[in-house]
Amino acid sequence: WHEGAVAGAKTDVKTISPLPAGEWSLPAGDYANTRFSSLDQITQANARNLKVITTVSTGVPHGHEGGPLVVKNTMYVVTPYPNNLMALDLTQPGGALKWVYEPHPDPRAVGIACCDIVNRGASYADGKIIYNTLDAHTVAVDAETGKEVWRAKVGNIDVGETVTMAPLVVKDKVIVGNSGAELGVRGWVLALDVKDGHEVWRAYNTGPDADVLIGANFKPFYPKDQGKDLGVSSWPGEQWKLGGSTVWGWVSYDPELNLIYYGTGNPGVWNPDIRPGDNKWSSSILARDADTGQARWAYQISAHDAWDYDEIMENVLVDMNYGGRMRKLLIHPGRTGFVFVLDRENGQLLSADKFQPVNWADGYDLQTGKPRENADKRTHFGVVTKNICPSSTGGKEFVPSSLSPRTGLLYIPAHNTCMDYEGIESNYIAGTPYLGADVRMFRGPGDYHGELVAWDPVARKEVWGIKERDLPVYSGVLSTAGDVVFYGTMDGWFRAVDARSGEQLWQFKTGSGIVGNPMTYLGPDGKQYVAVYSGVGGWMGAVAFPSISADDPYAGLGVVGAMAQIKQHTGPGDTLYVFGL
Amino acid sequence: WHEGAVAGAKTDVKTISPLPAGEWSLPAGDYANTRFSSLDQITQANARNLKVITTVSTGVPHGHEGGPLVVKNTMYVVTPYPNNLMALDLTQPGGALKWVYEPHPDPRAVGIACCDIVNRGASYADGKIIYNTLDAHTVAVDAETGKEVWRAKVGNIDVGETVTMAPLVVKDKVIVGNSGAELGVRGWVLALDVKDGHEVWRAYNTGPDADVLIGANFKPFYPKDQGKDLGVSSWPGEQWKLGGSTVWGWVSYDPELNLIYYGTGNPGVWNPDIRPGDNKWSSSILARDADTGQARWAYQISAHDAWDYDEIMENVLVDMNYGGRMRKLLIHPGRTGFVFVLDRENGQLLSADKFQPVNWADGYDLQTGKPRENADKRTHFGVVTKNICPSSTGGKEFVPSSLSPRTGLLYIPAHNTCMDYEGIESNYIAGTPYLGADVRMFRGPGDYHGELVAWDPVARKEVWGIKERDLPVYSGVLSTAGDVVFYGTMDGWFRAVDARSGEQLWQFKTGSGIVGNPMTYLGPDGKQYVAVYSGVGGWMGAVAFPSISADDPYAGLGVVGAMAQIKQHTGPGDTLYVFGL
Ligand SMILES: O=C(O)c1cc(C(=O)O)c2c(n1)C(=O)C(=O)c1cc(C(=O)O)[nH]c1-2
Ligand SMILES: O=C(O)c1cc(C(=O)O)c2c(n1)C(=O)C(=O)c1cc(C(=O)O)[nH]c1-2
Repeated sequence: WHEGAVAGAKTDVKTISPLPAGEWSLPAGDYANTRFSSLDQITQANARNLKVITTVSTGVPHGHEGGPLVVKNTMYVVTPYPNNLMALDLTQPGGALKWVYEPHPDPRAVGIACCDIVNRGASYADGKIIYNTLDAHTVAVDAETGKEVWRAKVGNIDVGETVTMAPLVVKDKVIVGNSGAELGVRGWVLALDVKDGHEVWRAYNTGPDADVLIGANFKPFYPKDQGKDLGVSSWPGEQWKLGGSTVWGWVSYDPELNLIYYGTGNPGVWNPDIRPGDNKWSSSILARDADTGQARWAYQISAHDAWDYDEIMENVLVDMNYGGRMRKLLIHPGRTGFVFVLDRENGQLLSADKFQPVNWADGYDLQTGKPRENADKRTHFGVVTKNICPSSTGGKEFVPSSLSPRTGLLYIPAHNTCMDYEGIESNYIAGTPYLGADVRMFRGPGDYHGELVAWDPVARKEVWGIKERDLPVYSGVLSTAGDVVFYGTMDGWFRAVDARSGEQLWQFKTGSGIVGNPMTYLGPDGKQYVAVYSGVGGWMGAVAFPSISADDPYAGLGVVGAMAQIKQHTGPGDTLYVFGL
Repeated sequence: WHEGAVAGAKTDVKTISPLPAGEWSLPAGDYANTRFSSLDQITQANARNLKVITTVSTGVPHGHEGGPLVVKNTMYVVTPYPNNLMALDLTQPGGALKWVYEPHPDPRAVGIACCDIVNRGASYADGKIIYNTLDAHTVAVDAETGKEVWRAKVGNIDVGETVTMAPLVVKDKVIVGNSGAELGVRGWVLALDVKDGHEVWRAYNTGPDADVLIGANFKPFYPKDQGKDLGVSSWPGEQWKLGGSTVWGWVSYDPELNLIYYGTGNPGVWNPDIRPGDNKWSSSILARDADTGQARWAYQISAHDAWDYDEIMENVLVDMNYGGRMRKLLIHPGRTGFVFVLDRENGQLLSADKFQPVNWADGYDLQTGKPRENADKRTHFGVVTKNICPSSTGGKEFVPSSLSPRTGLLYIPAHNTCMDYEGIESNYIAGTPYLGADVRMFRGPGDYHGELVAWDPVARKEVWGIKERDLPVYSGVLSTAGDVVFYGTMDGWFRAVDARSGEQLWQFKTGSGIVGNPMTYLGPDGKQYVAVYSGVGGWMGAVAFPSISADDPYAGLGVVGAMAQIKQHTGPGDTLYVFGL
């Protein structure tokens, strides 16, 4: 592999990290979070012949987010809590079970996790499968034997910390972040040593610069993000200690710049009037030195968030001809409903465009980096602000998009949900919900709820879209060198569509809704396979569970209002599907 | 349809009740429990082209026993507890969910059921889907709308009664039986009115003749089964009140004789020395008038059971040339390890032959109807009797065999498990386990654990067999007019084999172990499909659950000893698979 070497890539699109081909060893396949595979056996012409090759149940009928890894003819599956790791021998017919590693996480984590008991996957490195458990531990398991090599306690469930994200291994470090903004935790990202799991650095996203690892190299592009100890001064009193800004999404890495990129979640407590100020570094994108954790730049997408717009979404790294010259881009399709394109060297905002109905802001001022907000959509204590678009669940959720260097398009799993939002009272008790809002969500304008959007980041517009009438698109996306895009629907269809036209090539109905991320690999027989989990859940998907009543639209942090109808389409499941020609 | 009208049926084999073709509306497809379908699109020649058409998860990762029904282009799936009924619209792509009916059974039933929280399926009749819930209720649901039509309380969980069997609807009556012999319940079978669910008759299997519905028409063939109030006198004191003899398996019906047939479970308390006597009517086959419930005959397979040999296995009704003339047969492949062939008019034993390793008896005396027992394999209080074959789980379990009128063969899902057994103390407390034995099971002689046996009931021998080295065969069997036999393995393979040679034609690896029963039907497109559940569980299969430790061979009523290795092969699942060409 070498840079930009994708067959048929557009000349003005350069990938910046090795792309997955035969194996898939990182959560997104590559460091850059393109989720593009160089495999090209499955094409627009033959995808209609895809069929189920094998299936494996995990036995945990909860949201199956993330996707499997494939390394050395072994497939690795991390289940939702209890976070078992299953190894499947791909050289055996049907994918025989090699072993199951059971970490036995503390069951108290189940009651603490905000949004189902999900896990977003693992990284392979140094002969180990490394992933996080819901009770805020990171485990490293020998990829051959299934024996635990090390286990590190990274957070504390007693104060409401859980971990659901997929760690990214960068050189000798395992990058991990926490969840728990709905319980008033303080967000962080940290690096563990890949050999033994000891903590190398930890950077908080709120608090004094010393804690945030902000030092001499910190050079935010915009004045709004510049200043000393903003992680303290942009909060009232000590609220930054309960300030959320968690890291439960995806981490990217640029090997040349040696920077990691990630987004942060909402500021602690959803009622904005409790926390006057910008509330840094909530709802931000941060760039950090991979070795030291020192911040290079930060860009706050929305200051003083009033809508629970976590911005932990994937940051897709790619070099593109942008405004007449090749630039190092970071593309962030955001919960706020905008696709943000930044210069990933310095954090400059190059463009921000709506990819779904948005009314909280009209656009972004590229001079200041600030949104042009619609004041009457700002929420307040004791006021029901009506019809805000998008809802807290965003124009998209954490489910990751994919960028094909052959089409130059970003394929975004999106939804069209709006909400009424009221800031309310809430008291902090460690380890319990600390929410401060009453929310009711509903389907947005236009007769659809979800959409797979093929977005041209240079032309700054949608090229084509595939709409879902009843349900959001809440699965990750995979694009391949065969010019096929794969994704799933919340009612269980797994689809292959033409990367250029969006024409549907094939679909198969899996057992449950799809909220996981498809991946692809070469089997021991040299053939290309595509795998995906089917098992509805997560925040929006958990409404499909029989245990959740459809009667109260405010339930499930407001999500039931928008999702009650999912019960008519699907219910929980827990199965891995492998497809091939 | 008319009698014996199966294309290509052997001239000396006559089916006696309508066979399933386009639809599948009864648990076994027909009244006679042949599990043979007249459909012939899938053949020995094309079965290798079978592929997955669709899949549906139920969200309940427990033993998925029984199988779906198909009536009027709708497929009906009953889940394990909480016993939801899912209706799938087969006219829609992927089999869209029409509705889910949720009976909300009393959750206390979960702690009472002996062997996982299974359900063995439903009957369709009179526009309703009728099935039992674990908490001992029978429900009737409008097949179109999913609305409950009636609900009848048939048993009492407070004394340990649950219901797991599939009811059989015979004319205007719903035949139901209870579970709970491991808790000292008193077994019964009853008939509910199909219109409103009121109880029409109830027949106990222990106690005075009046309760057992034994009257003037009762004519057992053998002296050993003749006499007054044997259901009392064959027990010490009032032990018959705790006498088990439950009805958790399959009911058959002969429309011409108007008789129903069923087998009964083990006598209450496994320690035989607590209950001297024959312990009637435990481990017996009974024939009853379908309208009145009055007993016609009974045949006790093993008197004074000392091994937990429930004999609730299916009774396959067929007319065959037996001993030179056409006879009305009842074929019962038994837990005791023998295939019993009886004259179903009078209960005469025509033959009893071993189909798996058996050492508790050498054979049966056809003059007396009694087994020739091996005295040193009789178990006793305080004595560890070693190496008894088969184990309590039998030469086969409740999972039903299939008889093809084209081959005249009975396809038996079998296992080869032996045990050490010790009668121990046990105290009766209503609604709690009342077991009285320490059991440890292990794989039997010969290097295999399971076998699909193709048995010739006339020649009284195995024609061919397909062995499984590590695991029992614990799925039901389907045979078809295409001369294909379908069954599943506990490690999840679903197989099509040649009904004549046993040659494997095709297999697919489903997500979990198969303990359900395959069925077949015509889709709205006129094509033949085959459906089966994948979801390991039940008594032997529950050892696959992570919650059950593999360390104590005596655990799970002794089954862990024989089944610990299943964890290396599969784990729980919950998916319906539909296959087609
Ligand atoms: O702020 C947090 O710490 C946090 C954590 C998580 C999580 O860990 O799953 C979610 C969210 N927030 C959240 O805002 C959100 O929309 C969400 C959706 C989901 C999901 O799995 O579907 N998790 C989370
Ligand atoms: O005696 C009873 O009442 C009773 C009930 C059940 C049941 O309802 O599942 C089983 C048994 N016994 C039993 O002996 C047995 O082997 C068994 C296996 C299974 C199963 O689902 O795998 N259930 C039962």
